[in-house]
Amino acid sequence: MSLSEKHIIVQIRRQTGRNRAVITGIGNDCAILRLPSGDDTLVTTDFSIEGVHFRRDWHPPRSVGHRCLARGLSDIAAMGGQPHAAFLSLALPPDTPQTWVNAFVSGLLGLAEEFKVPLAGGDTSESPSGILADIMVVGSVPRDQAITRSGAKVGDSIYVTGELGASAATLDLFFSNPQRRPSPGKFMRHFYPEPRIAVGRYLREKKIASSMIDLSDGLSTDLNHICEEGGVGAEIAVSTLPLACIGGSKHPVGLHFALHGGEDYELLFTVSPRVRVPKSVGGVRVTEIGRIVKGGKMWLTSPTSKPVLLKPQGWQHFQRTP
Amino acid sequence: MSLSEKHIIVQIRRQTGRNRAVITGIGNDCAILRLPSGDDTLVTTDFSIEGVHFRRDWHPPRSVGHRCLARGLSDIAAMGGQPHAAFLSLALPPDTPQTWVNAFVSGLLGLAEEFKVPLAGGDTSESPSGILADIMVVGSVPRDQAITRSGAKVGDSIYVTGELGASAATLDLFFSNPQRRPSPGKFMRHFYPEPRIAVGRYLREKKIASSMIDLSDGLSTDLNHICEEGGVGAEIAVSTLPLACIGGSKHPVGLHFALHGGEDYELLFTVSPRVRVPKSVGGVRVTEIGRIVKGGKMWLTSPTSKPVLLKPQGWQHFQRTP
Repeated sequence: MSLSEKHIIVQIRRQTGRNRAVITGIGNDCAILRLPSGDDTLVTTDFSIEGVHFRRDWHPPRSVGHRCLARGLSDIAAMGGQPHAAFLSLALPPDTPQTWVNAFVSGLLGLAEEFKVPLAGGDTSESPSGILADIMVVGSVPRDQAITRSGAKVGDSIYVTGELGASAATLDLFFSNPQRRPSPGKFMRHFYPEPRIAVGRYLREKKIASSMIDLSDGLSTDLNHICEEGGVGAEIAVSTLPLACIGGSKHPVGLHFALHGGEDYELLFTVSPRVRVPKSVGGVRVTEIGRIVKGGKMWLTSPTSKPVLLKPQGWQHFQRTP
Repeated sequence: MSLSEKHIIVQIRRQTGRNRAVITGIGNDCAILRLPSGDDTLVTTDFSIEGVHFRRDWHPPRSVGHRCLARGLSDIAAMGGQPHAAFLSLALPPDTPQTWVNAFVSGLLGLAEEFKVPLAGGDTSESPSGILADIMVVGSVPRDQAITRSGAKVGDSIYVTGELGASAATLDLFFSNPQRRPSPGKFMRHFYPEPRIAVGRYLREKKIASSMIDLSDGLSTDLNHICEEGGVGAEIAVSTLPLACIGGSKHPVGLHFALHGGEDYELLFTVSPRVRVPKSVGGVRVTEIGRIVKGGKMWLTSPTSKPVLLKPQGWQHFQRTP
């Protein structure tokens, strides 16, 4: 066991057991969890790979740790679930500085603390090249009440939480001016995204959302999943999109960041016409951006021109948003 | 999404849903599992990293896939649990041959099928260098009945399943004669280890084991965990160790492979003196090899000489067994 591994285990042991769901964390072949009896169990896994999901010269280790867990928590939020425990598999090249590992673990445990989700286990190993983390989050949801991607019906309205495009627009600043790098403190939505657990849970408890997904790969890609799984199409009213403002600027980011930029970790959901949706949930703005229509296609609409076909563009972290 | 990713998802979708525990696998932000109500949940994660846990020139991809899942199932077995679903995170270098990926997935799904443990999700990504798999297995055990590492008491007998040393002795053949490589079909315990799920479950149901661990890091290291967690020591009677015979040979492997060789995936457990232990469980031999004693140390004993201190040696996959 390397110094890094020992350090991680000490940190994990220190904060395990604060959550009633974790009976036994580190120190056995498996972690033992006691989840709410009769609930369904939610499981999600997400890689965070150096050079693919983060760059060591762009992202401080604290942000990498935070974003690593945020990805998993956001998936639990998208099902309307409650997270209970996280598991971290971490592969490190032998020359990884101990200070990097410490700050990474601190960033991850800070978010874990905020959501009362103990790190209940995981694995560590040497990596032949590059830092590689795999986060797994286990959560729960009352039986048969998970919100899936497949419930959208023609006529439903489409909503998003928060603002869109902040994360991709921040990455774009790295590309456009390598000398002046965005500082993490001023670009929080990219470096320290907040998973929308409370909003997701509210939407499930109040039976508001007919389908839901988190915006990790960009609106055009994630909305397409909702359309494919529901066998429906969608119209997005361009003028209603809540474009983010970043870095203290009063000018919103470009439309393409909101349409195709990934890693906003906001929620996208659909709502039957009969259901009322509040303007905000727990301080997070909720905006109607369009509606579900027949056919499998997605369209951008505006009052002044013909509908334009919207194609899923996919999201490549270190490729500039088209 | 790469060809490999598409292929994996197609294979996974094909075999998901055969297990009643998986309500929704691939196609949502989380998998939804319905585990036995009121049971405790078991979670384990294990890396399989190229160059650390396997070598592409030594291990056929089918074996790598099999061993990847076997590691996770063996952890569930060590708690006396029942596995319900597996999750695979797989990072592949861009030049990984599709045939390699296909055979890897087949090896993994073959074992998954055998134990009725569907692959219910996971993640795929590009790897900067080397193939990297992270397997997660979710299982369950009746409330408060998981067998942990910490229950060994002074006077308990120590048992192991199967035979020891086969896996490390096979690896040693690669080192000693690089021209004549062990063929997978003749060295099954190394290339295709069988997790001891049924034995672990039997020991839990019959309340036989007071503590248990799987032999993944070698007897000296894993027994040391049992001693540390229980605050006890151990004596191993050297002459009783069930040494494996490999490759059709009638000669057992060297003692050091049984003491320090990893990846046998047998179970090591302790039993109170009042409890009777069968000679085999479900066709798997069970052998008494020593007893728990006072003090934190481990000793090798024999009728003809003084006890010798046994130190945990750790297990490095591609370092020759000392």
